[in-house]
Amino acid sequence: MTNTAISINRRYLLRERPQGAFSPSVLELVREPVPEPGPGQALVRNLFLSLDPSNRIWMGEGESYMPPVAINDVMRGICVGEVMSSNDKAYPQGSLVIGLTNWQDYALISSTRSNGARPVRRLPRIPRVKPQTMMSVLGITGLTAYFGMLDIGRPKRGETVVVSAAAGAVGSIAGQIALRRGARVVGIAGGREKCDWLVNDLGFTAAIDRRAHDWREKLAAATPNGIDVDFENVGGEVMEAVFERLNKYSRVVLCGLLSEYSEDGRTPGPRNFGNVLMRRVTIQGFNIGDYTPRFWRASLQMLAWLAIGRIIDRITTVEDLEKAPEALVGLFNGENIGKLMVRIA
Amino acid sequence: MTNTAISINRRYLLRERPQGAFSPSVLELVREPVPEPGPGQALVRNLFLSLDPSNRIWMGEGESYMPPVAINDVMRGICVGEVMSSNDKAYPQGSLVIGLTNWQDYALISSTRSNGARPVRRLPRIPRVKPQTMMSVLGITGLTAYFGMLDIGRPKRGETVVVSAAAGAVGSIAGQIALRRGARVVGIAGGREKCDWLVNDLGFTAAIDRRAHDWREKLAAATPNGIDVDFENVGGEVMEAVFERLNKYSRVVLCGLLSEYSEDGRTPGPRNFGNVLMRRVTIQGFNIGDYTPRFWRASLQMLAWLAIGRIIDRITTVEDLEKAPEALVGLFNGENIGKLMVRIA
Repeated sequence: MTNTAISINRRYLLRERPQGAFSPSVLELVREPVPEPGPGQALVRNLFLSLDPSNRIWMGEGESYMPPVAINDVMRGICVGEVMSSNDKAYPQGSLVIGLTNWQDYALISSTRSNGARPVRRLPRIPRVKPQTMMSVLGITGLTAYFGMLDIGRPKRGETVVVSAAAGAVGSIAGQIALRRGARVVGIAGGREKCDWLVNDLGFTAAIDRRAHDWREKLAAATPNGIDVDFENVGGEVMEAVFERLNKYSRVVLCGLLSEYSEDGRTPGPRNFGNVLMRRVTIQGFNIGDYTPRFWRASLQMLAWLAIGRIIDRITTVEDLEKAPEALVGLFNGENIGKLMVRIA
Repeated sequence: MTNTAISINRRYLLRERPQGAFSPSVLELVREPVPEPGPGQALVRNLFLSLDPSNRIWMGEGESYMPPVAINDVMRGICVGEVMSSNDKAYPQGSLVIGLTNWQDYALISSTRSNGARPVRRLPRIPRVKPQTMMSVLGITGLTAYFGMLDIGRPKRGETVVVSAAAGAVGSIAGQIALRRGARVVGIAGGREKCDWLVNDLGFTAAIDRRAHDWREKLAAATPNGIDVDFENVGGEVMEAVFERLNKYSRVVLCGLLSEYSEDGRTPGPRNFGNVLMRRVTIQGFNIGDYTPRFWRASLQMLAWLAIGRIIDRITTVEDLEKAPEALVGLFNGENIGKLMVRIA
C-alpha cells in the first residue's frame, strides 16, 4: 500500500443509541490500522464528511429509509473520498468517489460486494468545481432541493413559496430554485445573520427570523396572498404557522421534520390538519432515493446555474474528523449556514 | 299557481350556531305561505332532501367550502325537486331539478339571479332510475367517490384499499369502485350489520367493526401487505390506525374528517404524521366542486355500472321533512347505512 500519509484509521463507532437529542457521548473514537484492500477491493481515503439531519435518524431505531447503524459499528455518513490503492477496476487509483464511506479516515469499498448498501459512485473531476460541491449543490443536497421544489412544489411565476430551515443546506438551494422559476420566496430561519444572507446574498423576497417574538405576524405580512408552496424541512409549530396560510390547491413538499428528529417516538401532525381538506392541499413525503434515474439531467441543470452564478453554494467546513460530533450538535442547534461538512484529509 | 297540494311552506330556519355536536334545537320549523314565482323565477317543490356531514359545517363559522348559513336564514341543503310553475324558460314546469333548494317544502329559483350560489340544475329523467338516485350514485355522493378513488387514490389491481365510514353514502360507493379496479378493499364501519352488508352484499374483501375492542388487530390482520390507498372519511384515531399501516408511495384521499366536524376549533393531524415523510405518502385534500367539467363522463360510467349491478345503491329514506333534524343526529351517530335522505313530498 502506498500514498497513505498516516497508517492509523480513526473511526467513530456508535456505542449506544441516543435518548432524545444527539449527544457526542454515544460515539467513541477508536484508532485502528489502515486496512489493506483484498481482491476486488479498493481503499478510499475520505476527504470530506457530510453532516445531515439523517445522521441522527440512523442512530435510532425509529422508522427510516435505511436500517439503523448497528451498535459498535462505524457511524454511517456520506463522504467524498479519493481511491488510494485498488484491486477493483471500477475504482482506479486516484479517482474521486462519493458514497457511504462513513465516519472514518479510510474505507474499503467494492463494486461487486456492496452487501445491499448503495454503491459508492465515481465522480467526474469538473474544472473549477471543488470536490465539496459534489456533496452540496451537485450532490444529494442539491438534488433533494431540485426534485422537491420542481417535481412536487411546482411553483408558478408569481406564486408564494415558503421554505423552512431556509438557510440550511437543502433549504437555501430550494429557495434559489424557486426564485429561478419566478416565484416570491419567503425563507424562515433562526437568527438575523441567516436572514440577511437569504435576502441580501441569495435574493429571497423576504426572510423571517424564527427567533423574533413576532415571527408569526411577520410571516403573515410577508405572505399577503397566502402560501402556494411549502418546502417543509422543520415540522412542529413552524409548519403549523405555514399551514394557517396555505392557499387552495397549495402543495406541501414534505422534505424533513427536523424539529422532531430528536424526540422519542412519534412525529405529530399539525393541529390545523383540517386545512388540508378544506383547502384541497396536497402533502407529499419524498426521498431523493426515488429519483436516481433522473440525477444526471438535474445535475447538469444545477451545474449550469452554478456556473453562471444563478445558484450560490455556501459550505461551512469544520476542520478535522475529531470535530465531527460537536459539529453535528451544532447542526441540530441551527448554528451553520448552508451545507455543513467536515474536512477529514 | 297550480299543482300545489298544500299552500303552506314549511321551512327550517337556523336560529343559532351549534356548540359542538349538532342539536335539533338550533333549528326552528316555521310555516309560511308558498311563495309566488316572480318574473324570471320558478317555483320548485322539493321531493327529497340529502343529509350530509357538510350540513353541520354550514351551520358553523369554521372554515368551509361555502360561507356559513346566516342566522335566521333557511337551513341549506341539496334537494331533488320538481318545477311546479315557472317564469324561467330554463326550468320548464314539470322538470326535475337538483341543487341547493334547502330545508323546506318549496323554493324559488332563477337561472339568472343565483347570487353567486351554485345554480340549480335540470336533471334528465332516466328510465328505471329513481329521482333519489340522482342524489346518491349519480349525484355528488357518487361523483365524490368516483373522483376521489380514481383520480387521487388510483388503486392498482391487487393493491389494498381501506375505506373509513365504509357503510356511509360516499364510502360504500368508493369501496365498490375500488373493487371494480381489482383492488382488495377493506372497509371500516361501526357495527356488525354494516360490516355484514359490506362483505356479503357489496363484496368487500373484509370489513372491520370499529366497535369491536380489537379492531386495530383486525385491521392489521385484514391488511397483511399494508395499505396502498386510504379513502379517508373520518380522521381521528381511525385515520391514525390506518397511517400505521400505510405502504411506501401510498395515497391518502382526504375526503372528510367526520369525527372532527362536531368539535370546536381545530382538526388535529395524526400523531404518526412522520410516516408521511418516511413512507413517501401523498395526502390530497379534495372537493368535488373542482371536478364539475368532468361530471358528465363520470356519471355515464356510474350509470353503466348501476345498470348492470356492478354498483349497488342503498338509500335510507326518512319520511317527512319534520324528521330531518332527528335524522341528522342519527347521521352523526352512524345510524344509517348508505345514503341518507328525507322524503319531503
